[in-house]
Amino acid sequence: MDTQVVIIGGGPSGLLLSQLLNRAGIATVVLERSTREHVLSRIRAGILEWGSVEMLREAGVGTRMDAEGFPHDGTYITDADLMVHIDFKELTGKRVMVYGQTEVTQDLYQAQDRMGTSIIHGVEDVQILDLDGPVAKVEYTLNGERKSLTCAYVAGCDGFHGVSRKTIPEEKRREFERVYPFGWLGILSRTPPVNDELIYANSPHGFALASMRNANLVRYYVQVPLADKVEDWSDDRFWSEFKRRIPSQAAERLITGPSIEKSIAPLRSFVSEPLRWGRLFLVGDAAHIVPPTGAKGLNLAVSDVFYLHQALIEALKHGSENGVDSYSERALRRIWKAMRFSWQMTTMLHRFEGEDSFAEQMRRATLAHLAESETARKDLAENYVGLPY
Amino acid sequence: MDTQVVIIGGGPSGLLLSQLLNRAGIATVVLERSTREHVLSRIRAGILEWGSVEMLREAGVGTRMDAEGFPHDGTYITDADLMVHIDFKELTGKRVMVYGQTEVTQDLYQAQDRMGTSIIHGVEDVQILDLDGPVAKVEYTLNGERKSLTCAYVAGCDGFHGVSRKTIPEEKRREFERVYPFGWLGILSRTPPVNDELIYANSPHGFALASMRNANLVRYYVQVPLADKVEDWSDDRFWSEFKRRIPSQAAERLITGPSIEKSIAPLRSFVSEPLRWGRLFLVGDAAHIVPPTGAKGLNLAVSDVFYLHQALIEALKHGSENGVDSYSERALRRIWKAMRFSWQMTTMLHRFEGEDSFAEQMRRATLAHLAESETARKDLAENYVGLPY
Repeated sequence: MDTQVVIIGGGPSGLLLSQLLNRAGIATVVLERSTREHVLSRIRAGILEWGSVEMLREAGVGTRMDAEGFPHDGTYITDADLMVHIDFKELTGKRVMVYGQTEVTQDLYQAQDRMGTSIIHGVEDVQILDLDGPVAKVEYTLNGERKSLTCAYVAGCDGFHGVSRKTIPEEKRREFERVYPFGWLGILSRTPPVNDELIYANSPHGFALASMRNANLVRYYVQVPLADKVEDWSDDRFWSEFKRRIPSQAAERLITGPSIEKSIAPLRSFVSEPLRWGRLFLVGDAAHIVPPTGAKGLNLAVSDVFYLHQALIEALKHGSENGVDSYSERALRRIWKAMRFSWQMTTMLHRFEGEDSFAEQMRRATLAHLAESETARKDLAENYVGLPY
Repeated sequence: MDTQVVIIGGGPSGLLLSQLLNRAGIATVVLERSTREHVLSRIRAGILEWGSVEMLREAGVGTRMDAEGFPHDGTYITDADLMVHIDFKELTGKRVMVYGQTEVTQDLYQAQDRMGTSIIHGVEDVQILDLDGPVAKVEYTLNGERKSLTCAYVAGCDGFHGVSRKTIPEEKRREFERVYPFGWLGILSRTPPVNDELIYANSPHGFALASMRNANLVRYYVQVPLADKVEDWSDDRFWSEFKRRIPSQAAERLITGPSIEKSIAPLRSFVSEPLRWGRLFLVGDAAHIVPPTGAKGLNLAVSDVFYLHQALIEALKHGSENGVDSYSERALRRIWKAMRFSWQMTTMLHRFEGEDSFAEQMRRATLAHLAESETARKDLAENYVGLPY
């Protein structure tokens, strides 16, 4: 065999898996379609569950995160001017870490460089073969030349549009999907955060999220109709819309500035079962997508990697297939919990076009319930900081 | 004035209000459309929150309830064969009482008889007048003769179809409504309960509820399409459908028997705001309807009566209008909480015609979350046993 594990995709989940396997003495090759620069230019999630923080430390990539990340002990969920504080620390004893996915990916690349692991960029036309034989094979094109790698296992970390999931015959996959009838318009701006902790805001005008990257870099979002284009949203229009959706107590201290990035992302819930197909395992977005509400996307990829790296070490170092046999079921149990939570947060916080006044009242009653019930806040906090692996 | 408070409607909320006011020395007249026998033949809710139990005791009608009712320390929420026990006692320190609405109404009639209060049956064409003047007037027809009563206040306890709500001009009412796309087919049967505690069952075939009245009288329900008629459901068909919806562990000990009552009820969430219009106050179903899932209907009427009897005593005995001025807001705060809970329980437990597989997975994930999270069970339990007044 050319290597033990071929990892399709060099985003954070592929790199983290490579990092953990190499540290355990398992040989891997990562195949990535894009350049490193392109991977590092993606602006994504910024909130790490504490379990993810611990996984990154265990992988030997926690130093900069611990120095530069911002531990958050709580968050705000708001409804017009009602601000409900969810005190993670008090309710669960845990916290989360604000540290961008881009930074995580950069730290992983640097760690991989130090270990001298094999990451091949610019790979095209990947084909995953022989998954039910004793040796799997991955074929790909690099610089116009067709190549192949044999291996014991293949990890599909290549995202929603990747080839890995599609390698499982369609009739053997069970897919579940919800496409939400709105998107998130997000901007990056070099301004101080309007609030120390994040604000998830429901309002009569729709949802807004005030997130942050550091003391002078914010990531703010507003819910927009699916048909909207970035060109429809001048900075001025964004700021005035954002301002009227967050509580007035926060809006009055909002500092605006030019956007340095602006994009619209659709919201989707998606799960494809199973996660294992012979010698192939799906990880992260390759198998499941959550809407960003509640920040579960990257964290779910990390927990998939947790289960899979354990399973692969068990199989390749100790000769036991128990872990690989149970990977799909173990990972899916946690995935469905995060699916429920993200869907519930999304439903609770967004205006749905054409909804009746009863639906709006139920959303507001759900937020009022959070305000009035410590038990409801604890339930939200336990899910937000991350359920145990 | 002819009396101090005219109460429109002689169901449990009207009678309880009359009972509490008369015990406080306030004169009332209850006007009821039907005969006492008809009122007592209605088969309705059977679960009392502990706050309702205490209210009934305070009203002097707790003796038979305490002797014959069944305190329940928990309930089961199930998904196919997964049985989740919600331990009210352990999670909240409280319990509920199984005691039928018919029994409550009977106890109230007897107590009213003992006090010799005024309850007029067979009243037709009620009109509520002069609500913004110093003295309100209620006109009605009895045995073909038009009569009238002047009073300080009018309590509208005449249910969803009654005249009280409609007395508030339509343009001054804000109504919120959700009609669910299914009904509950219920039967009464003289058989021993399949389970000591209630079972709220989700299943691939739809919802079922195993409730009970006593050791040899059960009230069982199955969710049915709205178009179904009672004639479509033979006893045999009912039992086989009920049996496949409850967990097999319970189904195997199910004892069936002839139904002694069978009916289909639609499910609706409804709120009309405000609850006060000059000298008129709406109570219970006159202003709000909940679906039966979670058993909040009668209990909400009792909490309305709690707020209103305090307010009327304050106004009529102590000359303070603070209570009547804040009645609508106080009662509505608690009503919306119960609305949210009933809607959430209904959504979590019923199959919705035409729903996609993602919706079904979310329902099952919500039930799995209950099974796995004590916090989620506690949240349900706190709402089920009743939030504080």
